[in-house]
Formats: sequence, structure tokens, C-alpha cells
Amino acid sequence: MGEFELIRRHFVRGQGGPGVALGIGDDCALLRTTPGHQLAVSSDMLVEGRHFFPDVDPEALGHKSLAVNLSDLAAMGARPLGFTLALALPGADDAWLRGFASGLHALADAHGCPLVGGDTTRGPLNICITVFGEVVAGQALRRDAARAGDDLWLSGRTGEARLALERLRGTAWALADRSDDTLCRQRLERPTPRLALGTALAGLAHAAIDLSDGLAGDLGHILAASGVGAEIEQAALPVAPALQALPEAHRLECLLHGGDDYELLFTAPTDAREAVARAAQASGTPVQRIGRTTPDARLRLLGPDGRTQALHARGFDHFAPGSAPVS
Amino acid sequence: MGEFELIRRHFVRGQGGPGVALGIGDDCALLRTTPGHQLAVSSDMLVEGRHFFPDVDPEALGHKSLAVNLSDLAAMGARPLGFTLALALPGADDAWLRGFASGLHALADAHGCPLVGGDTTRGPLNICITVFGEVVAGQALRRDAARAGDDLWLSGRTGEARLALERLRGTAWALADRSDDTLCRQRLERPTPRLALGTALAGLAHAAIDLSDGLAGDLGHILAASGVGAEIEQAALPVAPALQALPEAHRLECLLHGGDDYELLFTAPTDAREAVARAAQASGTPVQRIGRTTPDARLRLLGPDGRTQALHARGFDHFAPGSAPVS
Repeated sequence: MGEFELIRRHFVRGQGGPGVALGIGDDCALLRTTPGHQLAVSSDMLVEGRHFFPDVDPEALGHKSLAVNLSDLAAMGARPLGFTLALALPGADDAWLRGFASGLHALADAHGCPLVGGDTTRGPLNICITVFGEVVAGQALRRDAARAGDDLWLSGRTGEARLALERLRGTAWALADRSDDTLCRQRLERPTPRLALGTALAGLAHAAIDLSDGLAGDLGHILAASGVGAEIEQAALPVAPALQALPEAHRLECLLHGGDDYELLFTAPTDAREAVARAAQASGTPVQRIGRTTPDARLRLLGPDGRTQALHARGFDHFAPGSAPVS
Repeated sequence: MGEFELIRRHFVRGQGGPGVALGIGDDCALLRTTPGHQLAVSSDMLVEGRHFFPDVDPEALGHKSLAVNLSDLAAMGARPLGFTLALALPGADDAWLRGFASGLHALADAHGCPLVGGDTTRGPLNICITVFGEVVAGQALRRDAARAGDDLWLSGRTGEARLALERLRGTAWALADRSDDTLCRQRLERPTPRLALGTALAGLAHAAIDLSDGLAGDLGHILAASGVGAEIEQAALPVAPALQALPEAHRLECLLHGGDDYELLFTAPTDAREAVARAAQASGTPVQRIGRTTPDARLRLLGPDGRTQALHARGFDHFAPGSAPVS
């Protein structure tokens, strides 16, 4: 089967949504943006053995490849318009492509974010998605917009994806108790982009980021960009049932440095608490106040005993010596 | 060196041009589009061993990676706004990154198209660029807009990139005479995106495409989308000095099926000849009428002897059995 036929069979499904003036099949796609809005764009590349296991379910991989990009739109408060997909494949595997496309399109349909173009080539498996969205000019949730004294909010909860990853890696502490294995695996392989919450927070929250590299590391990006510090209350962190039996050090590792959570971490002024609660309810997304930002530039964890400790804002670094791919 | 440091050192250079509200460093970049315009987006993925030789000059590779994307904007008549870069690297090679970034930024600067975001990860070398541009709504040059009886126009000339590729591959017929070797290599490794011509043609030409897979194959995309045929006059095809000594079969292979030309092929009504000539002159781009579109759906070559032959609109197919990577 030829390249064009392969693409046509699995990916082309009409011209997309209301924001799409011209979809797949020309040199460029053409998108319409709403007057008074800015265009939000983000690009993520997923590599086999680094971002996913070679034997991952292709349908889950299709879902996750788009989900991690939609999560970036959510973190800006942007509404999706469409996305491009560039795909390097070692060969034309019809069953794999069918599964991948099915996971991809299901999530795209759920968020009105059609595939508008892309590229396909032969090469080591590599998935690059660029997503486009729009947000009212001036209302985007930027990393540099936190103010000292803001509440620090978290959607959902962190840590299950990391626990699932450690179980797949065969890490001993993660295997001691395999409760909620399916749920953790779901969190790792099929993250939910928090788009409804993100758009509800645009113009309301101050700063926001989506959690891909761990709560502490990603919070560090907000703090550095905004020139503030933060204090996280350990007792306020939502703990998933699967994490409750873990020794504290491992539980904290999952909660604070887990990665692959794709929850929103955001700051908002204290007088916006009711408005944030309403936005969370309207979007059907649980949120939790987990601390506050501070005028000094430090990141601290306030333990259940009332003592604080410094927290290192390390994130996953694909080039650090010893940084671990998924496999 | 860590991932973020690596990116910062080579790619981050301020917040970009007038179309950029927020550049590198947040979950998304934010772009401003001009009222009354549509957004044009295109994505290309370049893989080592398939799109470029492993030992290619990284500076030339940086240039070409962006050039092939800008060429897609040119083919729609769109003006560049910015681009994202997703890069998988086998390791953090400072000299390679410096060269690559230098070639990339030089071309970006020449066209006012700043890098606004992206992703970096470890993996087999893979370069994925997504480019954003804008074009007045309704004026984009689409593949499906050719009308029977249009003139068929070509910018520049085709074939030198293919000749350079065959020489690098060591193909005997290409090595018999190595005249203009540097120029051919330049055409292969540093293509010139025809942006000034493309924007001058918006609202004037009918259909357009950029030549990446060979004149005949890419023309075939216009014909299929527009439901027309075409006749190419062999005698009207510009022949580069380096191609003149080739046996006719190889010369025609380069001219019609060469690939990597990144010239614009476009159709325009016959009463627009003067306007096209003015657009070409204003943009400093040579153009040539090389034939016409026809009501029947066939593609023919009119030979210098006045006889026509059917032309196969084959293009390069990355998945066809026997399709050849560059190396």
C-alpha cells in the first residue's frame, strides 16, 4: 500500500469542524480564528522506548499522543481548533494504524479538534502532534502570571501514572501491592486533558501549567517565570487509593515528582475561591487547594507535623545523565 | 547538559516578531492573526537516511528543515507568522546543535518567521517543523482551483536537486559529467522557498503547489483535486546548464520526476499573463509558462517534435516497495 493510500484509509475523514476552512490534502490547512482571539499552538514529540513501551496498545497510544497536546491547550485556557500529525513509521502496519487512528479520532471527536493535515514517512516510530487552539486575547493562562499570595490549586490528583509506570518497569516497591492496577494503568495510558476546566479558568485564574514532568518540577516553571515561591501543604494533596499503602517516601515521590499526570496546576487570587469552585463544578472537574504562593523564591513542603522542608523542583529531563526512558 | 539548558542555549532568542504575543517557554505559544485572514498551517517531518544523509552539514539541514515548510506556505500564498520545532536527538551534540540552529535561524530571520515553541527529546534523529502563516480569507492558492484552459506556470527550474542526489548516491549517469556540482548541491541542500512570489500570486493565480516530489507527480495532485488535465510543453521547460549534457531520458527524469525542487507550480487564467509577469518581477522570481490545463483528465508531454505522449504522475512514495531513501 502506498503512502497516500495509507493516510487516506486511516486518517482522512472529511474537512473537520467549524474552525477548519480547508482540511487535509493541500500544501497547508486553513483555519478560521474568532475575531478578538489569539491562536495558541503547542507541539509534542513522542518516541518509542522513551515516551511509550514498544508493545503499548496502539489505540491507547493514539489517545495519549493527542491528549498530551490538548493538555497544553487546557493549561493556556484555550479552546481546540484542530491538529496536525506527523508520523514516522518503520513500516505500513494496517492493524497498528487502525488502532492508533481510532484512539486519536475518538479523543479528537470528544473535543471538536479535527486532524487538519500532517506528514507520513518511513523511519523509527515517532509521533509529532501540533495542536491549535484559540483564547480571548489577554485571557490566556500564562506561567508568568502568578502573584505572591495566590492560592495554589490542583485538578484531580497526581501519582497514579507514575505508580503504573514503576509497575510496568517491575520496580519492587511498586509491585508490593497491585491494588487499583487497571485504574493506574488507565491514568498512565489514557490521560484526560482538562480542557473544560482550562477554558473555564481563562480570565479567572492567574498562572497555570499542565503536569507532565511532576508536580514539583512543573510548579517550579511557574515560580521561575513569575518570580515567586510556593508552599505545598502535604495534608492537602489528594491521595489516590492505590497510593495509600505505599511507604511515605515512595508516595511522596509519586505525588510530587511523578510525571505524566496531565492535571492542571494553577494559581488564583484568594478572593476567587468561589469562582474557581464554580468553574470546577461547571466543568465537572474536581479541584483542590494544595497551598499558596509566597513572596520569596523558595519551594517548600509543609508536612503534616507542621514542619516545612525545602522541595527540589526537579523535572524529568530527557538528556540528563541517567534519565530513564520508559523501557 | 540538561534538556532545558540545551534548548535555551541554541534556540531561544527572545519573543519573536509582530505576530507573536507569547513565544518559547509556556505550555503554548500565542500568535496574533490579522483580522480578515485565515491561518495556514503545515507540518513536515525529516528523518535521517530518508530525507537527508547522516553526514549532511547541520547548518544546511537547519536551513532545509524550515525551507520545505516555508515552501508549503508559499504554495498557499501565505505570509509566515512563526514555527514550532520538535527535535529527537540521539544525544546532546553541541557543535551539531549550533550549526543546525544557525541555519534554521538565518532562514527564519530572512522571512520574519520566528521559532515560537516546540519539544526536544532523546531518540533517533528526527526533525518535525510545523509552520504557521496567514492569508487573506478567500485568496489562498488551493490545489483544487485550477480551471481548464489555464496557463501552467513554473518558478525557477527543476532537476538540479535530483542530479545532486544521484551524484551523492554515486549513480553512474549522474557522475559522467560533474559540471555545476556546487550549484546542484546548493539546490538540493539549501532550497529557496518562493514566499515573495507566493504572496504576490494570492488572489491572482488559480491553483498552486510546491514541488517536493517531482513536477509531474505534484502536478498530478492539482489535476486530481481540480478535475482537469494538463499538457506540458517539453521545449518550454527551463533546463539548468548542469542538465544540458545529460542523455534525454535522464534529463527528463530530473526535470519531470526529480523531487526536492521547492519551486512553485501554478495555474492562472490566460488573461492574467501580464499580472503574473509583474508579480514575478516584483518578487524577483523567474517564472516560465510551461503548458496549459485541459478539460480531459489526462497528463501529457508535448515533445519538441510536436508529438504528445502520456505522462505518469508518479511521485515519491515513502512506503512504496523499493522506494529509495537518500542513503
